[in-house]
Amino acid sequence: MKALVYHGPGRKAWEDVPDAAVQEPTDVVVRVDTTTICGTDLHILHGDVAAVTDGRILGHEAVGTVTAVGEAVKGFAAGDRVLVPAITKCGRCSYCQRGMPSHCQTVGGIGWIFGHLIDGTQAEFVRVPYADTSLYAVPEGVTDQQAIFLADALPTGYEVGVLAGEVRPGAAVAVVGAGAVGLAAILTTGLWGASRVIAIDSNKFRLEKALEFGATDAFEAGPGAVDDVLALTDGEQGVDVAIEAVGYPQTLLTAASLVRPGGTIANIGVHGVPVELPMQDMWIKNVRLTMGLVDTVSIPTLLKMVAGGRIPAEKMGTHSFTFDQIDEAYEVFGNAAAHAALKVVITPAPAP
Amino acid sequence: MKALVYHGPGRKAWEDVPDAAVQEPTDVVVRVDTTTICGTDLHILHGDVAAVTDGRILGHEAVGTVTAVGEAVKGFAAGDRVLVPAITKCGRCSYCQRGMPSHCQTVGGIGWIFGHLIDGTQAEFVRVPYADTSLYAVPEGVTDQQAIFLADALPTGYEVGVLAGEVRPGAAVAVVGAGAVGLAAILTTGLWGASRVIAIDSNKFRLEKALEFGATDAFEAGPGAVDDVLALTDGEQGVDVAIEAVGYPQTLLTAASLVRPGGTIANIGVHGVPVELPMQDMWIKNVRLTMGLVDTVSIPTLLKMVAGGRIPAEKMGTHSFTFDQIDEAYEVFGNAAAHAALKVVITPAPAP
Repeated sequence: MKALVYHGPGRKAWEDVPDAAVQEPTDVVVRVDTTTICGTDLHILHGDVAAVTDGRILGHEAVGTVTAVGEAVKGFAAGDRVLVPAITKCGRCSYCQRGMPSHCQTVGGIGWIFGHLIDGTQAEFVRVPYADTSLYAVPEGVTDQQAIFLADALPTGYEVGVLAGEVRPGAAVAVVGAGAVGLAAILTTGLWGASRVIAIDSNKFRLEKALEFGATDAFEAGPGAVDDVLALTDGEQGVDVAIEAVGYPQTLLTAASLVRPGGTIANIGVHGVPVELPMQDMWIKNVRLTMGLVDTVSIPTLLKMVAGGRIPAEKMGTHSFTFDQIDEAYEVFGNAAAHAALKVVITPAPAP
Repeated sequence: MKALVYHGPGRKAWEDVPDAAVQEPTDVVVRVDTTTICGTDLHILHGDVAAVTDGRILGHEAVGTVTAVGEAVKGFAAGDRVLVPAITKCGRCSYCQRGMPSHCQTVGGIGWIFGHLIDGTQAEFVRVPYADTSLYAVPEGVTDQQAIFLADALPTGYEVGVLAGEVRPGAAVAVVGAGAVGLAAILTTGLWGASRVIAIDSNKFRLEKALEFGATDAFEAGPGAVDDVLALTDGEQGVDVAIEAVGYPQTLLTAASLVRPGGTIANIGVHGVPVELPMQDMWIKNVRLTMGLVDTVSIPTLLKMVAGGRIPAEKMGTHSFTFDQIDEAYEVFGNAAAHAALKVVITPAPAP
């Protein structure tokens, strides 16, 4: 089969590799019908993720069709259309049992293993361990071009932003960073009845998308943005929930400066360096700072909302490519702002 | 009347001042029968709290007897024995109505005003604004020497540590810093069924007190302490709740290094400088960091637990002084470790 193989920082190739196969009784093999690229894949290519070594197949998001089934698998059969999520979960360790497979102890202490600790989904086929507890059947009425964004981006925005931030009816929410994951938070914040969803970004295309995805207000990032937001929350001294969806010190500090006393700063961003937090000002504000890796346990909820027409997940995909154009897909996604791109959709043959 | 008056950094005097009097219909005047000193008073004397100006009477904790009542006050009468808590609350602003009077908008944006924005409790008498919503009747069976620690120290440990940290039955809890507020957290953690309460401090007297107050384990602060704690939480990679009760960058980082994935770091400490948080390691741990000023809304709960013999609040008081010994009381509390002191009890005449 063919797959996108990592060969050290800055090097990757769509090349022939051994076929994916069932190795454990709890495995299945999935033919990849749709995959995409995540910001984390770009970090890997920059050499930022030491655990990813030469020869690893990249990618941790897929929608596909089951082609082979291990003998212990009970919930899936050849031919089933499935969503392969970013997180693999054994279902029996203490972290899986408390609904936190982001830290599944069985698969490696961290539930994100595709394209990280084992071969990933940017390939014609992928081996899926612990299939019964990891895969999701894709219901009728949900297209591949919708489901693919439920593998990582949408549940990340929803779980690490909206749920961890405890958005509640009437809440004023600010989202700092309107890239794919920030937009995923904007797209799902309305589910919890936010009264106001304020997007902040330096890119005008993203701010337009934010308004299209449900933001009530959009402000260009900069010194005036904090004042703009605070003016909208007159009397409350800030928003109830400030979601950070970038991963830079400055964006986290911006989020912290937007939250009212008693509010929550929900950090989604993947940080690469320490952040100097102004605890001398923050301690007295009765705020909470949350952070984390997605669990993907919200996928059943999100699938229902997509099937019911409540979440237009397909809007996340702005550009389509075939497997043999995957280098171009990386180029577009890696320079998303310049290309007016959010997420890319990658399929074996041109999408219909 | 006499009172302890602040005269700029490092200067205070027990001196004659105008009598406290009802100024607004919602005020009462309370004769102070017992007061104490808080770490915040020491910060003020160091000149760290700019809002406190020359001439301010210090102190924000008292138990006393109502002597004069404004005409709008309905819940208290002359002769009532009352607890004057650290927080004053109007009861009607949006922050008071959501149970967060720490940020009462009416009294100054912050609920802590005694010995800060208005005259305080280290005096023979004190004017108490918004008496109906701020004061608590002290029930039979609770002594002044118990109730005084419910004005600030005990609710701070309980609300900002135990409640914000969401201690739940079975939880492993670490408390970094076993001074008065850390011990208050230890004393009240058991109410929520913690399976293990681990104290960490550099002072042996405090570690002994921690064990006496309900800690199951006590470790001397230092490079080995983190390993000691992690060894006790085998398989979970840390405690469920790490409570920080000091207010230094290092102690917050220690607390952060003790918490398991999915756990909570509850910061109680009052910080004076920024803290460089290792977000590059923390973002993936699915942890929460909470912080805040006490609301004192747990006082009714704590009064019931003290009255029922479930919280031996009197153990917080290690040294007693009279008003005319208040300089000595400050000296002992300001060098608490050297004096084997926790909190001091200050009364008009020698305690019986």
